[in-house]
Amino acid sequence: MTHSFRLHDIAEHIGAELRGDPEAEITGLATLSRAGPGDISFLANPAYLEDLDQTEAGAVILSKQHADRTGTNCLIIQQPYVGWARVASLVHPRPRIKPGIHASAVVDSSSTVAESASIGAQVSIGPGCRIGEHVVIGPGSVIEDDVDIGSDSRLIARVFIGRGTRMGQRVIVHPGAIIGADGFGLAFDRDHWIKVPQIGAVEIGDDCEIGANTTIDRGAIENTVLEEDVRLDNQVQIAHNVRIGAHTAIAGCVGVAGSTSIGRYCMIAGASGIGGHLRICDKVVITAMSTVLDSIDEPGQYGSGIPSRPHGSWKRTLVRLGQLDDWARRLARLEKNKQKPE
Amino acid sequence: MTHSFRLHDIAEHIGAELRGDPEAEITGLATLSRAGPGDISFLANPAYLEDLDQTEAGAVILSKQHADRTGTNCLIIQQPYVGWARVASLVHPRPRIKPGIHASAVVDSSSTVAESASIGAQVSIGPGCRIGEHVVIGPGSVIEDDVDIGSDSRLIARVFIGRGTRMGQRVIVHPGAIIGADGFGLAFDRDHWIKVPQIGAVEIGDDCEIGANTTIDRGAIENTVLEEDVRLDNQVQIAHNVRIGAHTAIAGCVGVAGSTSIGRYCMIAGASGIGGHLRICDKVVITAMSTVLDSIDEPGQYGSGIPSRPHGSWKRTLVRLGQLDDWARRLARLEKNKQKPE
Amino acid sequence: MTHSFRLHDIAEHIGAELRGDPEAEITGLATLSRAGPGDISFLANPAYLEDLDQTEAGAVILSKQHADRTGTNCLIIQQPYVGWARVASLVHPRPRIKPGIHASAVVDSSSTVAESASIGAQVSIGPGCRIGEHVVIGPGSVIEDDVDIGSDSRLIARVFIGRGTRMGQRVIVHPGAIIGADGFGLAFDRDHWIKVPQIGAVEIGDDCEIGANTTIDRGAIENTVLEEDVRLDNQVQIAHNVRIGAHTAIAGCVGVAGSTSIGRYCMIAGASGIGGHLRICDKVVITAMSTVLDSIDEPGQYGSGIPSRPHGSWKRTLVRLGQLDDWARRLARLEKNKQKPE
Repeated sequence: MTHSFRLHDIAEHIGAELRGDPEAEITGLATLSRAGPGDISFLANPAYLEDLDQTEAGAVILSKQHADRTGTNCLIIQQPYVGWARVASLVHPRPRIKPGIHASAVVDSSSTVAESASIGAQVSIGPGCRIGEHVVIGPGSVIEDDVDIGSDSRLIARVFIGRGTRMGQRVIVHPGAIIGADGFGLAFDRDHWIKVPQIGAVEIGDDCEIGANTTIDRGAIENTVLEEDVRLDNQVQIAHNVRIGAHTAIAGCVGVAGSTSIGRYCMIAGASGIGGHLRICDKVVITAMSTVLDSIDEPGQYGSGIPSRPHGSWKRTLVRLGQLDDWARRLARLEKNKQKPE
Repeated sequence: MTHSFRLHDIAEHIGAELRGDPEAEITGLATLSRAGPGDISFLANPAYLEDLDQTEAGAVILSKQHADRTGTNCLIIQQPYVGWARVASLVHPRPRIKPGIHASAVVDSSSTVAESASIGAQVSIGPGCRIGEHVVIGPGSVIEDDVDIGSDSRLIARVFIGRGTRMGQRVIVHPGAIIGADGFGLAFDRDHWIKVPQIGAVEIGDDCEIGANTTIDRGAIENTVLEEDVRLDNQVQIAHNVRIGAHTAIAGCVGVAGSTSIGRYCMIAGASGIGGHLRICDKVVITAMSTVLDSIDEPGQYGSGIPSRPHGSWKRTLVRLGQLDDWARRLARLEKNKQKPE
Repeated sequence: MTHSFRLHDIAEHIGAELRGDPEAEITGLATLSRAGPGDISFLANPAYLEDLDQTEAGAVILSKQHADRTGTNCLIIQQPYVGWARVASLVHPRPRIKPGIHASAVVDSSSTVAESASIGAQVSIGPGCRIGEHVVIGPGSVIEDDVDIGSDSRLIARVFIGRGTRMGQRVIVHPGAIIGADGFGLAFDRDHWIKVPQIGAVEIGDDCEIGANTTIDRGAIENTVLEEDVRLDNQVQIAHNVRIGAHTAIAGCVGVAGSTSIGRYCMIAGASGIGGHLRICDKVVITAMSTVLDSIDEPGQYGSGIPSRPHGSWKRTLVRLGQLDDWARRLARLEKNKQKPE
């Protein structure tokens, strides 16, 4: 599957300075500790410096400050992890697309599918859809009606794209993702719930990536929106009418409640929950397993996750938590006594 | 897709008092801020009062107290959000069902499918199922054997319904939902796990709604039960032998552990976790991202979620949390000294 | 579906001591409170002792200490729950496999499917796969290319197995599970994200069980690994390059971030989050809804979940939490004063 490259070609491809043998042959990718003479590797995290000393890699992508430490072939670049991403894409390219519509796929005759697109086995595409150039729709996917999918987007397999979704170019949707299901809209009528029709849709900007089993609800009236280059990990839940700014990344298992707007260049760590009707400004970082219940209008890092402790110690802390109210009174009483002449 | 209505017809449909032009023509639905002269809108949340002042909507559904504030056509009703839900269903009706079984669907010959039902592309239905009148089973769904689906229920697409499931009428199941997979039943036998067969099933009452990628496990021995009008948002996990009372609503990403019983008219906010073998009584509200580890026998609001703070401040709080045990001793010592003659 | 057994046959099958009528006929399984004369039941949790006193079961599996309490037929065994699991498998065996490939399935001609395997409706299997003896691949499943599935494994329905996955024998994968989607690999290049190709795969050991809608990402470079007999509940998220030791069980809604290694015989309770790049040693228990952000090198129980309280009480605790910093100063001041001569 992989190809063979000369090191100078790789250096040129990523704009790195080459130190060592320009003719070294690279055929594979590996971590520093597992790489052999035909492999290229990288060092981005200083925690792996010792692996650099012992690596048998044919070449290593790293920053200037670390290059002097090693005698192996080096590709020196300011952002080694970015360089690695580029090299990995070069050495391990995506499988070729086979254009065409699989015989078992069901495509409504009113939909348009570009000739360069690939529609997999057992795909279902409803009426009025527009599937762009080089789009891949993997096996078992269901596309409802009136859906636009921009060119070069890839729906890996078994995704659901609901009615009216507008998806940009180069979007990647991983298996099991559900885009455009109804939001959780309910009105309480005396003694039971009645469903509030969800008539908005979902807009996904260019270059977004949507993780496996992630869900993005359609808007209640207006649309749910992901601007360009938004990156969602697996099992993320985005409720109706949420808006997520460009270049924001959200890690696994995060939930965002309805009508909340998140800014650009935010990073939300795993398993956090963000309440509804909030405004989070640009460049906010939320740490793992935090609960965001108020709007945030200053960039910076926020959190409320509690690192776990040994059970006995944590149980005592829980007991103390229940006593804080009492302590407040005792502390105040002590201070009052202090001020009295004794 | 939408139709045209006279305002007086809408008023009559929802039982509202009409103020303004009864012949006003309504063709669409929109928020106050986006509505044009052909749109009807609503005001339920006073936070949007300013939008009311500036709206160009052709008519607004609102309560008496807000109607005097505006010169636009009004539909006055006690519960504007309920009125909105009804109007939205009227103006934006669900797409018509096309009865019949898609040529690509696989239906076991021992199953019964009502003639008015619609079975979508690439659906698989096992033996011994009963699919009721006007039921919709969307593309890519898998129905195992011996499943009952009550009339007017809609399985949007790509759902899984396990063996023996009993589903009532007018139930909605969103894409990716898994109803009736095995519960997490394991017995530890000296040095390894053995699987405990899960022989119960799932019962879903009338008018329930099950969110996208939500999972409801079959019972271990007896059944897992949702009574009528239970509403589950996306990515909710309901473990084996849970029972959820009628009219209870559970928001996204909540997990309920095995054998817990939740009462009627409860509301569980997003990302909360509810332990196993508990009894939660009727009319309990759990706030967002709370952990419920004890039974609750008094209606009311409960929680343990901690709103996030700026990182530095939260880090100091975490340090303090670790000191509470020590503080307890210091506080006691100070009080003891106080009581001594000095 | 169930069969009829004599009690002495069941006793022999599970190695239990029989007290009572060896010829008693058993045709079903039930809880103590629901069992009738043809049913066998069990007592593992002393909380159900009262049900034992009143049971009408034809026989009960229990430990010696509880057997004297009842006059009903007993199967006495050290681990009643293990005995129950075995009896349940005997009385309620799994449905027979129908070998063969369903006419609607699409299997690449370069893949090998054992003759005893069963490939369901609308399954898609890519090139270069090896499907072992007695494997069941349920309806709507998608298997990418170069996947190995060991003998007797069962993919219930609608699962996704990504390119290069190696799966052992007797593995069970529940509906909606996604194994081998891309990990969340991103490099930030000045003002936007670029995708880091995920070139590792997933290895699943023998006897693992993967819950409904659970996701296991492929490795970034090396593989994501589950050793044998790992048990994952529903909606668990396992990020790239995680390694989970043999016999570890992880309850619903848990997320494990990238490159973390979890030991053998660990138990992670529901809705917990485990950070990235950590090492958790063998025999660690994490309690419900805890956040693990540091490596753990001592077996034992750890946690940070906070049990919910009535709203008013919890709100006061939150206020107190915000005052701890101030309290630290006040406490120190009081102690300082104390030491001064007054």
